[in-house]
Amino acid sequence: EQEQRALLLQLKGKENVTKSGKKLHIYANIGSVGDVGYVLENDAGGIGLFRSEFLYIGRNELPTEEEQFQAYKQALQNMAGKKVIIRTLDIGADKQADYLNLGEEENPALGYRAIRICLTRPEIFKTQLRALFRASVYGNLSIMYPMITSVEEVKRIQSIVKEVKEELAASQTPYKDVEEGIMIETPAAVMISDELAELVDFFSVGTNDLTQYTLAIDRQNEKLEEFFNPHHKAILKMLQMVVDNAHAAGKWAGICGELGADPELTETFVRMGFDEISVAPSMVLKLRKIVREME
Amino acid sequence: EQEQRALLLQLKGKENVTKSGKKLHIYANIGSVGDVGYVLENDAGGIGLFRSEFLYIGRNELPTEEEQFQAYKQALQNMAGKKVIIRTLDIGADKQADYLNLGEEENPALGYRAIRICLTRPEIFKTQLRALFRASVYGNLSIMYPMITSVEEVKRIQSIVKEVKEELAASQTPYKDVEEGIMIETPAAVMISDELAELVDFFSVGTNDLTQYTLAIDRQNEKLEEFFNPHHKAILKMLQMVVDNAHAAGKWAGICGELGADPELTETFVRMGFDEISVAPSMVLKLRKIVREME
Ligand SMILES: [Mg+2]
Ligand SMILES: [Mg+2]
Repeated sequence: EQEQRALLLQLKGKENVTKSGKKLHIYANIGSVGDVGYVLENDAGGIGLFRSEFLYIGRNELPTEEEQFQAYKQALQNMAGKKVIIRTLDIGADKQADYLNLGEEENPALGYRAIRICLTRPEIFKTQLRALFRASVYGNLSIMYPMITSVEEVKRIQSIVKEVKEELAASQTPYKDVEEGIMIETPAAVMISDELAELVDFFSVGTNDLTQYTLAIDRQNEKLEEFFNPHHKAILKMLQMVVDNAHAAGKWAGICGELGADPELTETFVRMGFDEISVAPSMVLKLRKIVREME
Repeated sequence: EQEQRALLLQLKGKENVTKSGKKLHIYANIGSVGDVGYVLENDAGGIGLFRSEFLYIGRNELPTEEEQFQAYKQALQNMAGKKVIIRTLDIGADKQADYLNLGEEENPALGYRAIRICLTRPEIFKTQLRALFRASVYGNLSIMYPMITSVEEVKRIQSIVKEVKEELAASQTPYKDVEEGIMIETPAAVMISDELAELVDFFSVGTNDLTQYTLAIDRQNEKLEEFFNPHHKAILKMLQMVVDNAHAAGKWAGICGELGADPELTETFVRMGFDEISVAPSMVLKLRKIVREME
């Protein structure tokens, strides 16, 4: 608490820049419109991961387009032109909503979740996309798609987005073209990140899921603690591949998983070339401090 | 049936060699001592994957060392000097044994299984290793360890193997040093296959698990069929990394998952440089035919 106040006094309004001039965007991860206040208080440069599940969980029916639109608009307006990366519905696995009837699965973490639901139930996806594009005119929106494993999925998303834009245009509803990126959180996406980089505007690595799939270890399974190593060299190699492939295609790459907030790795991530790290609001200034003390 | 007899008449005793002289070992996957007959009938060069679970499943207690020894000895003798690669206990996930009390898990495929059980319950592992090394003098045995994700795991295995050998030597029980290899079936193992290759004698890629972790798709989940692509480029890139890293360290590399039996890919695997493919006994001659027709 006191440490945080000292950091604020010392670092508020300062750049995230190393002594040799390398800059980093430090954004915040949030899960509701109410959290936007913490983002601003902690002087984050933007929202690197706005989880949209709060609109879908803890209720009995799908949120309407209007309800979603109001939430996104509010967040964009409150952020007053700073970047807001909203992730589309990432439900399934440990996040369930009864009214969606997702069903029981043997291995929900390897199951029907996130973009897989959106692509097989496009009416849910289109409602969210309509709300997002309608809100886009109120600020600096980016859209991010979770759990991508293939080029084909990205192309299916793009064709749905095109439909949504055409419908909005046909009804003379204003919208902006926005940056669209994908989460890199499956080993498949890492391995084909060269091809994926050609199709999207940015990558954000979801290290939690990426680590659990790469190590084949459920991160919530306590029996496996002795085998779980979040600093596993496989993950670090994958991170380097992702940022290199993004840059080769002229795109930017960030990290939005828990590993991004690990102060032992901040320097490593900057040296790898990451353009952005998105962390809990309370971690933003801690990372700024580390970056500013780097050579 | 008739096709199989024709293949036998035409190809029995012939080499697995392309027209330009590239050779491949085609071995068979089996799951019991009784299956050894099929291996020989179908003229496989050896057993590339002998699953040892038959000794542990469908009963009420652990198999004794003696019981295991007799089974391994029998298989080795019946194979009369041909290579027999026995995989150590690969239980957990969809293969359960009540008496082991493995417990319920949210995501058993990402859970307490295979080498993770063996390393945390070394008494089970040591009994199996003692039986294997005792049987080693009766034929051409190799031992293979499943679900490896790290260098540390391999080192823990090696220290247990060392103990077992010392105990056998102390009691003047005969054994041979055998080839020891690992399954490459987690993305982590692929990414650090350069380091792992220094520690073991061979790799065998388990494509079923590797694919499900890489794509984050439970291969038994029917709802995900449209997202599952066993020929995904990520898998093919990983296979190339594995074989290249094995060869760079002077080790051999094989494939023992279902993908190995996909006739559309046999030519690809040979061109990648794989030294061995292990398939169901009934597929051995079909692959021989494809290889012999290759340039
Ligand atoms: Mg995720
Ligand atoms: Mg396996």
